[in-house]
Amino acid sequence: MVYGKSLSVQTKGFSDICDITDIVSSVISESKIKEGAAVVFVTGSTASISTIEYEPALVEDVREKLEQIVSQKMHSRHSQTWGDDNGFSHIRATLMGPGITVPITGGRLVLGTWQQIVLIDHDNRPRNRDIFVQIMGE
Amino acid sequence: MVYGKSLSVQTKGFSDICDITDIVSSVISESKIKEGAAVVFVTGSTASISTIEYEPALVEDVREKLEQIVSQKMHSRHSQTWGDDNGFSHIRATLMGPGITVPITGGRLVLGTWQQIVLIDHDNRPRNRDIFVQIMGE
Amino acid sequence: MVYGKSLSVQTKGFSDICDITDIVSSVISESKIKEGAAVVFVTGSTASISTIEYEPALVEDVREKLEQIVSQKMHSRHSQTWGDDNGFSHIRATLMGPGITVPITGGRLVLGTWQQIVLIDHDNRPRNRDIFVQIMGE
Repeated sequence: MVYGKSLSVQTKGFSDICDITDIVSSVISESKIKEGAAVVFVTGSTASISTIEYEPALVEDVREKLEQIVSQKMHSRHSQTWGDDNGFSHIRATLMGPGITVPITGGRLVLGTWQQIVLIDHDNRPRNRDIFVQIMGE
Repeated sequence: MVYGKSLSVQTKGFSDICDITDIVSSVISESKIKEGAAVVFVTGSTASISTIEYEPALVEDVREKLEQIVSQKMHSRHSQTWGDDNGFSHIRATLMGPGITVPITGGRLVLGTWQQIVLIDHDNRPRNRDIFVQIMGE
Repeated sequence: MVYGKSLSVQTKGFSDICDITDIVSSVISESKIKEGAAVVFVTGSTASISTIEYEPALVEDVREKLEQIVSQKMHSRHSQTWGDDNGFSHIRATLMGPGITVPITGGRLVLGTWQQIVLIDHDNRPRNRDIFVQIMGE
């Protein structure tokens, strides 16, 4: 069985980290699938999906580290060519990847106690982000 | 068809890299699934799953590079707030991601000759890690 | 339903980035699967799969950033031990991961307008790369 849904999440950009665990769980409930997996994927080339212990101090740590590794101030041929100044956003997205697949058992996501699914929007402005959640199983 | 199993792996922490290929292969055998995919996921927010040519020199190279990119000595708001000193572990885990999905054909993992599936435990102490392997297919 | 195919892609190495979106789409068409997901996986321990806005300026940006984070000139125990000088290739591959899973709906990949699926070959020579595309769904 397959049950998919496109969802929209409002973000602030600049690697804003948004907890989407409840959204994904809702789609699983709607799907009636008990055993399987949830493919969580962001459509767009300047955002990523991962997991984190979602608490404010750690969220800031991750954003600061991303700034150290791929700075907003870096020279970017992409930014220079297209004038949209978001080369760093694209690079962060490609390095982190666009999605994850989380097992489902007993109708619930298999996650650790302190582990949430997050959308990380690397773009250089607030956006209304589309994510697609595909539930597969039985 | 879906066949899932939770498994425990003993690690040393500090981005200890453990070859879990045989464990994943065992679950595939038990599942009797011949064509499909194995979702390999670590429950917990301070570990990752990836692949590597599992040999000691390269394992050390990867651990050293992780230390260069996200050092144990980095200032971390998370460590400061909660006093558990493992902010770096969380950041490494979020950047690398919590799981991978590997195709299965002929009842076997589709891997390169020198490619093993590994659990990387970034936490700052030895742990008994739970991973969940979900086999889907026919 | 499951439909899998192994495919070969010619690369130039050194984190050469190749657009494989059309290849993956072809396998979906062959599979006749309308709703599900495509597991895109590279067999080999020196390459990765991700997504990007595939345009030349950004491709160069990503390659330059990879060189800054994990340089070809880095000291590597793996290179030293085996004499194949591609320790950096392995490290880049392990950090970025070997595959992604992309949802399929209406018989098409769920991707953003400016988002392509890419193979990134980190090895230190041109290669004929095997990727495996597993289509699962109904």
